[in-house]
Amino acid sequence: MITGWIGLGAMGWPMAGHLHREQQLKAIWNRSADKARAFAEQHEGVIVADDPAALAASVEVIAICVSADHDLEAIIDAMQDSLRPGQIIVDHSTVSPATARKLARTLANQDIAFVDAPVTGGVEGAIQGRLAIMAGGDWDAAHRLERLFECYGRVHHHLGPSGSGQAAKAVNQLMVAGIAEAVCEALALMETLDLPRESMLELLAGGAAGNWFLDKRGRSMLADEFDVGFDPALLLKDLKICQSLCTEAGFHSAVVPLALADYQAMLEAGENGRDISSLIRHKRP
Amino acid sequence: MITGWIGLGAMGWPMAGHLHREQQLKAIWNRSADKARAFAEQHEGVIVADDPAALAASVEVIAICVSADHDLEAIIDAMQDSLRPGQIIVDHSTVSPATARKLARTLANQDIAFVDAPVTGGVEGAIQGRLAIMAGGDWDAAHRLERLFECYGRVHHHLGPSGSGQAAKAVNQLMVAGIAEAVCEALALMETLDLPRESMLELLAGGAAGNWFLDKRGRSMLADEFDVGFDPALLLKDLKICQSLCTEAGFHSAVVPLALADYQAMLEAGENGRDISSLIRHKRP
Repeated sequence: MITGWIGLGAMGWPMAGHLHREQQLKAIWNRSADKARAFAEQHEGVIVADDPAALAASVEVIAICVSADHDLEAIIDAMQDSLRPGQIIVDHSTVSPATARKLARTLANQDIAFVDAPVTGGVEGAIQGRLAIMAGGDWDAAHRLERLFECYGRVHHHLGPSGSGQAAKAVNQLMVAGIAEAVCEALALMETLDLPRESMLELLAGGAAGNWFLDKRGRSMLADEFDVGFDPALLLKDLKICQSLCTEAGFHSAVVPLALADYQAMLEAGENGRDISSLIRHKRP
Repeated sequence: MITGWIGLGAMGWPMAGHLHREQQLKAIWNRSADKARAFAEQHEGVIVADDPAALAASVEVIAICVSADHDLEAIIDAMQDSLRPGQIIVDHSTVSPATARKLARTLANQDIAFVDAPVTGGVEGAIQGRLAIMAGGDWDAAHRLERLFECYGRVHHHLGPSGSGQAAKAVNQLMVAGIAEAVCEALALMETLDLPRESMLELLAGGAAGNWFLDKRGRSMLADEFDVGFDPALLLKDLKICQSLCTEAGFHSAVVPLALADYQAMLEAGENGRDISSLIRHKRP
């Protein structure tokens, strides 16, 4: 399927790279044009579209990977006039299930399939092409997208109607945020107690506390390195989505308000790095 | 080294079994004698000691794996008259660092080495002989115990003076409790949102939320099975140790009071199963 890609951030860039390697990528567009030109220079044959509408006019499938609900809505809006019946839009951004449902409904009226398909696995997962992809919406379109998903995903599942992928991502982010609280706090306590770090990392990872975040970020956060990973501002956004979802579902969460308060305080104090593991700074006495 | 084993619970039984397989186990003792007799029937050549003192009189190394501080202290007390200079006591129980330090000090006066060596890795880790062992105390004794540790451990480290192993275990348990909060809450939300369970477990495990507890307990807790694992009453005990440690160190924890309140409420309501994953019951709306 002839695919166009919108959004070349920390996740989108390597994901689009995998599509190119599998010869499924025709055109790209990115809000800052420099990045799109740099991508095209490194990936032979990829066309830089002038705008989202030009991209939409030239492909069958439009894949999007941007930051927030309003970014996604602005892009779909900008493409409106060049969309054609039969096209598929697949959104890998993390937005609210309500936004996904609304867009899917509107686009369905024009006979355009919208699939919400947020991903997890971190920057590492994107680079290695080993993401987990949570899809919701048009069943037939999701099925046709499997060839795409296999370019950068290790596992993908269709979970239900529009918004199901985003609901699943919210569940995932609650878990991610809760684990980050546990790991950052435990490692801050470990520092306070002056326990030997290298041995401790090996012991903690080797037992019942073992987890992805500790494996990938434990060593770097103890070295005060927070340059690569998942921006705390984005997790804060995801937690707000999660909070709304809990409220709508009548579900009481203890983890979401705790994490929300921590990241809010951290961002306000300017303590944040470019990864959520910088939470350890906030946890230190 | 001729070793005696005290405490044949969910962890102690398989650990002692590994020692027997490696021909390092001479005698056993357990508070309920039935269990000791059953162990001896299944493990040829192992002697059931009449009491802790008789066990201590017959071995070089005394390994202990019981539940709480007062159990450990009662056993050491009961052995007093038969302990001999040069013996080593290794404690795999989870107790407070203060108790470990106090016992080590008292025993050192009799020229007996006491090594605190709590473990993590769950019942699975004990059965597979793949525990992580956190040792503190007498350096020379800990070095001599390595042959023992290798019978049931995948990784072991000596972390510092007496109590260091228990301090490390408290850090580990904070992480375990925080992860259990995150996983149980996220899976309860997943149920509430009616997302498909098998697909979700695979997606959650395959991304940035991946962790040991989800891998080992995710499927069973969604099936409402809480029979095997780590007793919530024991985690509550561990969290109280952790709370004291934080207070002493002037460390503010958000995770410990949250988990303490949850397990306390769960135990009071009789909602608990025999594993901490029964926390999901408490998290359901």
